[in-house]
Amino acid sequence: MQLYNFNSGPSILPQEVLDQAAAAIHNFNDTGLSILEIGHRTSHFVEVVTEAQQIIKRLMGLDDAYEVLFLQGGATMQFMQVPMNLLDENGLAAICDNGVWGNKAVKEASIFGPVKVVADTADKKHTYINKQLDIPNNTTYLHITTNNTVEGTQWHQYPQTNALLIGDMSSDIFCRPTNFKQFDLIYAGAQKNMGAAGVTMVVVKKEILGKVNRKIPAILNYQKHIEAGSLLNTPPVFSIYVSLLTLRWIEAQGGLVEMGKRNQEKANLLYHTIDSLPAFYCPIAKEDRSIMNAVFFLTNPALEAPFLTLCKSEGMIGVKGYRTVGGIRVSMYNALPLSSVQAFCDLMKSFAEKN
Amino acid sequence: MQLYNFNSGPSILPQEVLDQAAAAIHNFNDTGLSILEIGHRTSHFVEVVTEAQQIIKRLMGLDDAYEVLFLQGGATMQFMQVPMNLLDENGLAAICDNGVWGNKAVKEASIFGPVKVVADTADKKHTYINKQLDIPNNTTYLHITTNNTVEGTQWHQYPQTNALLIGDMSSDIFCRPTNFKQFDLIYAGAQKNMGAAGVTMVVVKKEILGKVNRKIPAILNYQKHIEAGSLLNTPPVFSIYVSLLTLRWIEAQGGLVEMGKRNQEKANLLYHTIDSLPAFYCPIAKEDRSIMNAVFFLTNPALEAPFLTLCKSEGMIGVKGYRTVGGIRVSMYNALPLSSVQAFCDLMKSFAEKN
Repeated sequence: MQLYNFNSGPSILPQEVLDQAAAAIHNFNDTGLSILEIGHRTSHFVEVVTEAQQIIKRLMGLDDAYEVLFLQGGATMQFMQVPMNLLDENGLAAICDNGVWGNKAVKEASIFGPVKVVADTADKKHTYINKQLDIPNNTTYLHITTNNTVEGTQWHQYPQTNALLIGDMSSDIFCRPTNFKQFDLIYAGAQKNMGAAGVTMVVVKKEILGKVNRKIPAILNYQKHIEAGSLLNTPPVFSIYVSLLTLRWIEAQGGLVEMGKRNQEKANLLYHTIDSLPAFYCPIAKEDRSIMNAVFFLTNPALEAPFLTLCKSEGMIGVKGYRTVGGIRVSMYNALPLSSVQAFCDLMKSFAEKN
Repeated sequence: MQLYNFNSGPSILPQEVLDQAAAAIHNFNDTGLSILEIGHRTSHFVEVVTEAQQIIKRLMGLDDAYEVLFLQGGATMQFMQVPMNLLDENGLAAICDNGVWGNKAVKEASIFGPVKVVADTADKKHTYINKQLDIPNNTTYLHITTNNTVEGTQWHQYPQTNALLIGDMSSDIFCRPTNFKQFDLIYAGAQKNMGAAGVTMVVVKKEILGKVNRKIPAILNYQKHIEAGSLLNTPPVFSIYVSLLTLRWIEAQGGLVEMGKRNQEKANLLYHTIDSLPAFYCPIAKEDRSIMNAVFFLTNPALEAPFLTLCKSEGMIGVKGYRTVGGIRVSMYNALPLSSVQAFCDLMKSFAEKN
């Protein structure tokens, strides 16, 4: 049976990335050794890190004011590592709480200094992006979650601020061209658009570091990682390699312009289908809908279970909504082909006709 | 050319582990999906975590007083995470500084509370294990590095203490049977004896947690990971799977008894060869020599470079000593066959005869 992988993350990767990753487990770069058996300080692996850093800077259009790091622990680690490096009692973190992830960012930052929630969308169950931000003058940084994987919302134009701008781009990194330079620090777990689980990309403007008065453990200190060329300790070698393969794939396909074109086309098709079928509805404000994760519902809740059963029987994987939200969630990351969305829309139509 | 992988880590893995890992990248457990594309909360992956936890407890002979976690960041993260969870201003960390890694553990712990270095072997360039520990009565925990990868020393009998005992077993975990119950917390980066880089095993006795008066960020809080069944956030899926494959391999080979037998045999052969050839010498105290990493030198330093060149030309990989130590380092982890050590010893003999 053909499978359609709509997983929210870890999620679908390009077939050629999988083929190359598997081949490297047998023989990496003609070394005769597995990628799992090579030293991380060998020239073979240093080249992997360097090339991945270069592609990221190229895709983002960033100059040497920024550094690219490959860390571990995902966004959950960054929720505490960002404030540990940037926030102290004299500062203020302004955080947009537009859903599950922003909310966690608030909790972790509170351990390190004053926090103000400058946007909260709980009033409408996080079905929109609150863009009316009241950012105090003494704000150190504004933190936004650029795409809310769980709730299905996405910032399509980033907020303007005089404070530093921090972006958790875990679930929409490299989904389209955007003004990355607007940000002072961007982080993303790789397991959606840029590889497999186990590595976290952090892109940071160097000049913002070193301002807090706190002893920072080496492993959590961005500055130390920069000084060590992102090889402070044994990095997640294989996950970084899979990210390199995925980054190469993005460039070879036509870069962010092409990713954006494809993702918009997939999203247009899916949202158009949802909106045109009375059996389904999407509660997300149209201007804030995510092109990565579409969250929607059956108009008749009793039909949700039968629809999910049908999806399963037709090989549609990962379409059950997040446990706190319910409904349906269809994730359409870079590697998902348009044909998968077409197949899903056909299934929706056929289900709607019969019910 | 046949290669002999003596890398110090990431290092050699069993061929069948590599084969199974590569196969799972194409099709994991007959799901039709890659291990890189599956959700970490699916039953497929929860079973991986559970089985790996069970094997670890079985190998260690531990009961439910202990929990097994799969975290990220390696020993370098544990250097700060252990004191963050266990040490505050009212406590005292007693740390054995027997080399590079113990020294880092000292520095990181100092950020969180009082530290006493209870053993320092710098006087003899870390060529022995100082077992005369002066542990104050008010010590919270004693931290030892059970095997010093860089310096080539290893604890063969662990110290007795009334304080909690913490072991960094990164480079000798599962190398032989030992009394794991003596420890209250054990950690190990997987990339030597139990898998690929990207995952860190932490085994912790539950009752020691929750005693410090400090707000601990969720991702660094052992208690939170335990509550979440080691799935607090997206874990390093593939690295955990490779650990499971390696753990299964250890059990299938005969468990720790068989590992210990093989490792002792390899180490005996290598050290006997070094000691019997005047062209080489090992400065490490005989009773403290590591069965994982043999560190030794050419009696005539001018012959070191030619010997390393010869090793390279004969496919002997990773035998250059650590940069601060120099000389030769031969790592003989679980997956290294005796035949590789035999080939290396033959090369040493032939080199010694000709020079």
